[in-house]
Amino acid sequence: MSLGQIATLVAGEVSGDRDYLISALATLDSAEPGQLTFLANPKYASKLAHTRAGAVLVRAPELAQQIENAIIVANPYLAFAILTQHFIPDAVAPDTNIHPSAQIHPTAKLGDDVKIGANVVLEPHVQLGNRVRIDAGCVVGERSMIGDDCHLYANVSIYHDVAIGERGIFHSGCVIGADGFGFAPSKEGWVKIHQLGGVSIGDDVEVGANTTIDRGALDDTRIGNGVKIDNQVQIAHNVVIGDNSAIAGCAAIAGSTQIGRHCTIAGGVGIIGHLTIADHVHITAMTLVSKSILEAGSYSSGTALEPTDKWRRTAARLRRIDDMATQVTQIDKQLKTLYKKG
Amino acid sequence: MSLGQIATLVAGEVSGDRDYLISALATLDSAEPGQLTFLANPKYASKLAHTRAGAVLVRAPELAQQIENAIIVANPYLAFAILTQHFIPDAVAPDTNIHPSAQIHPTAKLGDDVKIGANVVLEPHVQLGNRVRIDAGCVVGERSMIGDDCHLYANVSIYHDVAIGERGIFHSGCVIGADGFGFAPSKEGWVKIHQLGGVSIGDDVEVGANTTIDRGALDDTRIGNGVKIDNQVQIAHNVVIGDNSAIAGCAAIAGSTQIGRHCTIAGGVGIIGHLTIADHVHITAMTLVSKSILEAGSYSSGTALEPTDKWRRTAARLRRIDDMATQVTQIDKQLKTLYKKG
Amino acid sequence: MSLGQIATLVAGEVSGDRDYLISALATLDSAEPGQLTFLANPKYASKLAHTRAGAVLVRAPELAQQIENAIIVANPYLAFAILTQHFIPDAVAPDTNIHPSAQIHPTAKLGDDVKIGANVVLEPHVQLGNRVRIDAGCVVGERSMIGDDCHLYANVSIYHDVAIGERGIFHSGCVIGADGFGFAPSKEGWVKIHQLGGVSIGDDVEVGANTTIDRGALDDTRIGNGVKIDNQVQIAHNVVIGDNSAIAGCAAIAGSTQIGRHCTIAGGVGIIGHLTIADHVHITAMTLVSKSILEAGSYSSGTALEPTDKWRRTAARLRRIDDMATQVTQIDKQLKTLYKKG
Repeated sequence: MSLGQIATLVAGEVSGDRDYLISALATLDSAEPGQLTFLANPKYASKLAHTRAGAVLVRAPELAQQIENAIIVANPYLAFAILTQHFIPDAVAPDTNIHPSAQIHPTAKLGDDVKIGANVVLEPHVQLGNRVRIDAGCVVGERSMIGDDCHLYANVSIYHDVAIGERGIFHSGCVIGADGFGFAPSKEGWVKIHQLGGVSIGDDVEVGANTTIDRGALDDTRIGNGVKIDNQVQIAHNVVIGDNSAIAGCAAIAGSTQIGRHCTIAGGVGIIGHLTIADHVHITAMTLVSKSILEAGSYSSGTALEPTDKWRRTAARLRRIDDMATQVTQIDKQLKTLYKKG
Repeated sequence: MSLGQIATLVAGEVSGDRDYLISALATLDSAEPGQLTFLANPKYASKLAHTRAGAVLVRAPELAQQIENAIIVANPYLAFAILTQHFIPDAVAPDTNIHPSAQIHPTAKLGDDVKIGANVVLEPHVQLGNRVRIDAGCVVGERSMIGDDCHLYANVSIYHDVAIGERGIFHSGCVIGADGFGFAPSKEGWVKIHQLGGVSIGDDVEVGANTTIDRGALDDTRIGNGVKIDNQVQIAHNVVIGDNSAIAGCAAIAGSTQIGRHCTIAGGVGIIGHLTIADHVHITAMTLVSKSILEAGSYSSGTALEPTDKWRRTAARLRRIDDMATQVTQIDKQLKTLYKKG
Repeated sequence: MSLGQIATLVAGEVSGDRDYLISALATLDSAEPGQLTFLANPKYASKLAHTRAGAVLVRAPELAQQIENAIIVANPYLAFAILTQHFIPDAVAPDTNIHPSAQIHPTAKLGDDVKIGANVVLEPHVQLGNRVRIDAGCVVGERSMIGDDCHLYANVSIYHDVAIGERGIFHSGCVIGADGFGFAPSKEGWVKIHQLGGVSIGDDVEVGANTTIDRGALDDTRIGNGVKIDNQVQIAHNVVIGDNSAIAGCAAIAGSTQIGRHCTIAGGVGIIGHLTIADHVHITAMTLVSKSILEAGSYSSGTALEPTDKWRRTAARLRRIDDMATQVTQIDKQLKTLYKKG
């Protein structure tokens, strides 16, 4: 693709040779001639002088002047994101759209132009939209519905009564609709609460590898439109996640918690059950959220990293902080007495 | 089902119309006419006045009087749990009990009335009890035994020499019997300790989606009767878990640790290796257990949630708590000197 | 195997009967006559007096004298590790090396003596080395290469353009090469950054069950030689892990972080993105690493375990530590004033 063609895709302006051909995208550090890179963070502007890149996506004409070929765009990172879809490597087309080893129940309804891989199992009354692609080894349970243009990578498990919107991406090993963790204690041990709700997932949702989203106990677990979920995230029964929130790897959200819209939840965060999290809340890595958050903003818990020896002393002192606080109060009182006296 | 029939199932007493028909279970907030809900927590009693539910499971006659139809039971939550199994949606029966695409080794022994899904693989000498159901894509390794009435959902992986009791439920993507993480350091790098033990799982155990339970190094990893394990839990080699303990999502238990009976381990908890945890221990979310717990009770670690700016100051102060403690001790000494003086 | 034969395997010396036959390995506590165990930790030496083991691997002749049969080796734990591979239970050989249900694309290239299980899918241009074993239900994507003597257990998912060295072990449910979590924010929501890099994995790597290693955004995610990764570990796009590092269960490493060689990362550790971790760094369980670590050593974060009531007070005090520090500074000042006064 020429720089001119690329500029059109991202509504940018070429500075340099419009006919220069780009064969690949690359990072600023590793880009070679013939490759296009981007400068998103102004603090790396000095790297422009040394890059071997064929061209760079930049924010401003003065940056473009430092290199031979550039495309000037309002948001280089977004432009780069948009371009990535044009550089996906070609795949060998399958001989047939529906692999002969796939097990498709006669009551399943398939849209136009679906692609079903080897050993896929579609159970009774499954509905697939148009252009849905389901890779090898996936299993979709009874009555589940998958919207237009969804892509399930290999070995995804979808239970029964799951409804998925359009353009969803589901990575290998994710499990949608397993039973929520619900038991009533009794004298004879835990009695299972069969999970009678389903899972409802909006449009443009991406779900990472080995992520689990449980079905609801009675009502559905609900994932909004545009929600992005990384790998190994656990979403418990009856959680509700608002539109366009993003959840990074290994985060876990316990039962019935409601997350607002446009939230970002960093890796390893835990949110306990039955909480409400407002819109535009950001939670930093490995934070435990143990109460509702009703105001937008950034929230954290945990302690700073230290060498283990030093940390041991810190942790031991912290365990006695209550005593220390009492001591300080006492000292303060004594000091005030002394002052009065003297 | 009529309220009269339902009352019989839960040993309760109808207040109102015994012939009133119930078509579904629902939450107190969303229940409609024709639906049955429950009031377990007395603090929500005021909701009874507004519910549109056809009937409610309640604890006491005075609560029943607030609504037209009710069932009075000693434990409404337990009664609700018992009823959930009567409202599981019907599934289309497969054409055959053993799907023709299943790969069952001739040495495998199958009980009566088993159901084997598409692409299931049963390796040599596998033994299945009566009424075992194994869904599509599951693989069961050599010599593994699965007791009566177990259900493996799609894409479960069971390694060789795993023994599972009766009535177990295994959700999609769980892996039972993978190698424990054991290596001996040597000058040439890590030398693998082949894991020669197995996994032994009791009766009435439920294992969540994408949970992993490793095989033992020499002896077995052992899970007691009635143990309930949520999604994405990691149980390392030679862990022993006592009867009726429950482990919530994303918890991890390191090698050779022994957990007692009737424990509850909340989400994201980590327990390091070679510890002993007594019976009736409860551990709160995301706690790190770094030493044995020999007395029943509730245990925690971690810090409270704060706005990130405030949290940064807290974390920075905490890192200097040792200095602060020294300063307080010194102040105390000086103050005592002053007192003596004067 | 006789003690004499075993001694040869581990370069040890028999003390006692060279012809004594060993049928199994066992722990010091559970070993029976005919079984071999080991004494690695000198603090358990007193157990030698009571063991029923047929023979024990020990470090020194004086220990060997306490029991009838022993093998004296420089490193009993390493000797035990080496011996484990000789006690792996025999498996029934499959009727054919390539199961008839496997779906192997005609462009795939297979080395000599490969073993391909039921329902395995090898996509176009996959390359397998010699003696590669791929168990049932695995899917390997286009152009991926798997080196000699690798073993993929059941239901592993390998995406396209993944390169794996020799002697690798991949446990069930692990996913190699799923998309990294990359999105650019825009007014219309998150725009996906298609992940155009691959994954490159060295020789002698072991990857645990349900672990996920994402493909790179532009460059590859890279795992060095001899790296050992436990279950449910998450490795994000463009992470680099140095040779012989070991990562325990449920750890997570965020995007573009570089880990040195010979590091050990304990269970549940989280490392945020774009950091550098030096060689020989050890991180204790559930630590959050939020800045680069440039010096070898052991590092930690978090707080000590406490009974929940006590912990609540500690956490509440900690939240006010900034105020306490201010108070202490003030007291100190007042005290100094008093001293000056007289």
